[in-house]
Amino acid sequence: MIDTPTLVDQYCHGVLRTELGLGTFEALLGRSAGPPAAGTTFFDTQTGFAVRRWCPPLLGLEPHCPPARYLARRRELGVLESGRRLLRATGISTYLVETGPPGDLTGPDELAAAGAAGAHEIVRLELLAEQVADTSGTVDALLANLARAVHGAALTAVAFTSVAAVRHGLAAAPEPPGPGEVRGAAGRWLARREAGGALTDPVLLRHLLWIAVSSGRPLQLHLGDDDPMTLGDFAAATAGLGTDLVLLHGYPHHRQAAHLTSVFPHVYADLGPALARTGARAAAVLAETLELAPFGKLLFSSGARGLPELHVVGARVFREALTRVLADWVRDGAWSGADAQRVAGMIASGNARRVYRLG
Amino acid sequence: MIDTPTLVDQYCHGVLRTELGLGTFEALLGRSAGPPAAGTTFFDTQTGFAVRRWCPPLLGLEPHCPPARYLARRRELGVLESGRRLLRATGISTYLVETGPPGDLTGPDELAAAGAAGAHEIVRLELLAEQVADTSGTVDALLANLARAVHGAALTAVAFTSVAAVRHGLAAAPEPPGPGEVRGAAGRWLARREAGGALTDPVLLRHLLWIAVSSGRPLQLHLGDDDPMTLGDFAAATAGLGTDLVLLHGYPHHRQAAHLTSVFPHVYADLGPALARTGARAAAVLAETLELAPFGKLLFSSGARGLPELHVVGARVFREALTRVLADWVRDGAWSGADAQRVAGMIASGNARRVYRLG
Amino acid sequence: MIDTPTLVDQYCHGVLRTELGLGTFEALLGRSAGPPAAGTTFFDTQTGFAVRRWCPPLLGLEPHCPPARYLARRRELGVLESGRRLLRATGISTYLVETGPPGDLTGPDELAAAGAAGAHEIVRLELLAEQVADTSGTVDALLANLARAVHGAALTAVAFTSVAAVRHGLAAAPEPPGPGEVRGAAGRWLARREAGGALTDPVLLRHLLWIAVSSGRPLQLHLGDDDPMTLGDFAAATAGLGTDLVLLHGYPHHRQAAHLTSVFPHVYADLGPALARTGARAAAVLAETLELAPFGKLLFSSGARGLPELHVVGARVFREALTRVLADWVRDGAWSGADAQRVAGMIASGNARRVYRLG
Repeated sequence: MIDTPTLVDQYCHGVLRTELGLGTFEALLGRSAGPPAAGTTFFDTQTGFAVRRWCPPLLGLEPHCPPARYLARRRELGVLESGRRLLRATGISTYLVETGPPGDLTGPDELAAAGAAGAHEIVRLELLAEQVADTSGTVDALLANLARAVHGAALTAVAFTSVAAVRHGLAAAPEPPGPGEVRGAAGRWLARREAGGALTDPVLLRHLLWIAVSSGRPLQLHLGDDDPMTLGDFAAATAGLGTDLVLLHGYPHHRQAAHLTSVFPHVYADLGPALARTGARAAAVLAETLELAPFGKLLFSSGARGLPELHVVGARVFREALTRVLADWVRDGAWSGADAQRVAGMIASGNARRVYRLG
Repeated sequence: MIDTPTLVDQYCHGVLRTELGLGTFEALLGRSAGPPAAGTTFFDTQTGFAVRRWCPPLLGLEPHCPPARYLARRRELGVLESGRRLLRATGISTYLVETGPPGDLTGPDELAAAGAAGAHEIVRLELLAEQVADTSGTVDALLANLARAVHGAALTAVAFTSVAAVRHGLAAAPEPPGPGEVRGAAGRWLARREAGGALTDPVLLRHLLWIAVSSGRPLQLHLGDDDPMTLGDFAAATAGLGTDLVLLHGYPHHRQAAHLTSVFPHVYADLGPALARTGARAAAVLAETLELAPFGKLLFSSGARGLPELHVVGARVFREALTRVLADWVRDGAWSGADAQRVAGMIASGNARRVYRLG
Repeated sequence: MIDTPTLVDQYCHGVLRTELGLGTFEALLGRSAGPPAAGTTFFDTQTGFAVRRWCPPLLGLEPHCPPARYLARRRELGVLESGRRLLRATGISTYLVETGPPGDLTGPDELAAAGAAGAHEIVRLELLAEQVADTSGTVDALLANLARAVHGAALTAVAFTSVAAVRHGLAAAPEPPGPGEVRGAAGRWLARREAGGALTDPVLLRHLLWIAVSSGRPLQLHLGDDDPMTLGDFAAATAGLGTDLVLLHGYPHHRQAAHLTSVFPHVYADLGPALARTGARAAAVLAETLELAPFGKLLFSSGARGLPELHVVGARVFREALTRVLADWVRDGAWSGADAQRVAGMIASGNARRVYRLG
């Protein structure tokens, strides 16, 4: 039997502090902006079924009980108590929390207290830039403040993350943009943005990424729907600089992401949301990722946001998938039991402790 | 045990009315235009093996008997009687039939009679446009007749389909083309085409798609070899208009197709040919599609054309795959038995009844 | 039980003749140019685990023993004796060997002698062209010598291979370049290259490919990371000419490669490195390839280079995967036992004997 004692969740968000009705809860299970199609519900997804499998027993109900009954019980316990019960059942000992846009989600400290765990902050580069722009009147001030803000954040945050880099920033060119280019883009952005306006300018995004690379903190890149192979040139350009890249949300291109981890020593891949999203299929998706990725290059996360149920699902689905996949290989004689146990520990927490220097 | 009582085949063609020799039968199993490579046969494919597994017993022979013996028995019974026996063993209660180019395939009524089932027509937009062009002398007439023909077809057909839209029409732009652009393209097409000439002009294809979208009937889009992500912009442009898009032939990009169904409420995905083509692997391919797609967004089809054997294979392979995948998940505790039975009914027929308003 | 009596390894390299330390041995297991990331080792990969599973018992040790103990035993036996023991345990009766750049790897005859097998040469087009350029002073001489060298090699080699064709040569255009274009490119290459300089010019690569096509010998194309669909136009342009194309290294695009083999009679796909690289997952990857590929279109190889351990892993992993996948399908009734045995023989050696006319 493979054992995964504790987990480091290398990428997640906080949870909502308010009581939730059925509709709001359901919306947080979906992946589209609006409501589900007429005649369908986001509960009828692998994520929905996984929530109904794992969470009701943690609040004293039968697995797979109807959503309405589960939500009634959740409200009966209250959002704080149900959140505590759920988070403490995950087996996660350390959360790395993307603090994201200001809102009603709990921050790292509050999440840590609820989950009886440790927590560290991941800083999203686009938000940092937008905050800097809100308080910078000139191009000179913006550029100086940007560098100062990133290097300042690097003193306390364990990693940076970017959601727009792959889509908007790195398709055209991987290299740092030249000073003139950056000044021009900064000027245009300052002139046209409204306060709080999102950063999608490719030149500024690349400039920001390269400041982050120079900080030495691991840089997490959201792949979204994009083929990770578009990242090949950026991976080549950043090789040997001492900063690690962590690919997030590779599915359905997780095999390509795994391939990149095998080609570049400083490239790592996240496992989390792909497993939480695919529920009953998580073992198969995990096994695919384990085809080409060196075992020291994969990192668990829940990718959860808003609902502590998603932290539970991320952790439970991962543990079950990992145990099942590795135990099969040991039973077949393909792996030794000792190696399987060692690799399980690496993916569950050891690799993350090394990459993020968690001590 | 999961039960799939009856099936709605949401995309298929009719069958040939003539007796077939071994070579003609084999050609209909292949995917290339010409003959198989020297030293190989199309019977040595998953489709060939699936036909040999499922069909001989329906005509009183042993499974996996040699192709020549099967075809001798088929001719002995006659094409009509063997067709009836095969189609009535599919468990399909309703066929949605793409009537395709005029030829020697049975139409919806004839297929329904042979199969003791119901049938509805799917109209292929390119063929409709070519018929209209054959009888329209001027640009004005062509454009007026096109709109009239599509809206007229929408009164009786249950859906439209396009084989060229993704490849030729939507790569450049998703929006409806402007009136001047359309008139120019229509004039060029009228001037240059020969009677019966195929429509591949991107502007006219987009114009046609948007007329179909305005009709409110579901629009089936053949993906061919193309990555469904190229459809993202068209999906975004048609969101909220009340017309559903159904992605056909997603394999080997079925996970990307499933992803689109999870992001856009009005996007659905077809399961059929991917399963019929992959035979012994159908359960694995189906399971991959069930990773990300909401369960209300998947539709069974056989994708069969020419041979009633292909309707049999499509239906049998689907039923067996669905039962196996869902029963495994119930056995593991990942899904409840009641949910599995409910989802099986949705994919087998319920989703299609809702999307195509089959009553 | 499915039996695979002997194997034709349709693509591999020779082995090193020198004694190896732990670091050098490990480097040959990796896929990146440099050393592994700090805190990781290339032994912690599917390939590393597969070597530790299959090879120690062939040298009298326990499976999964520590790498250092294995390498000590290997040195104790000596590189020649351990190489003989390993190669003779592969079950490979014929090696097709890419002779590659001049170096310290054994050639076909030496590999054959060590493995008690037959061997034939595969000629890499880029290297042939570079050797020709080293001794050609003018454009006229270069072009004449190129044609002569390719047609001369075709007299003894069983196939040609190209590593740069897909990446550098065929993305822009599939057709043979015109004479003026070729002369221009040849002049520029002669003027600028240093002796031994690698050929990446797209025009000369295409010119070279089309000379090879005209020789009638099968042409092996390395896909690298590229989507095989980019090869569709070249496949269409070479259809019906009597020269077969063999796609190498399709993973993770092996399903697209399999698709091409189903669409073009003269296109074949290699199985080897995808299985050797994915180890415990080889059965799953093989099964995916068997979804769409006609069974007469798949060819075993080890893809091994440098270490006889990689020939062992390629062969063992392939045999086990094939037996497992086909036996499952026979047990399920999807395939007959006789068909499974026949297909196993085709993929293990029969298809290669036919395609490469091995008699």
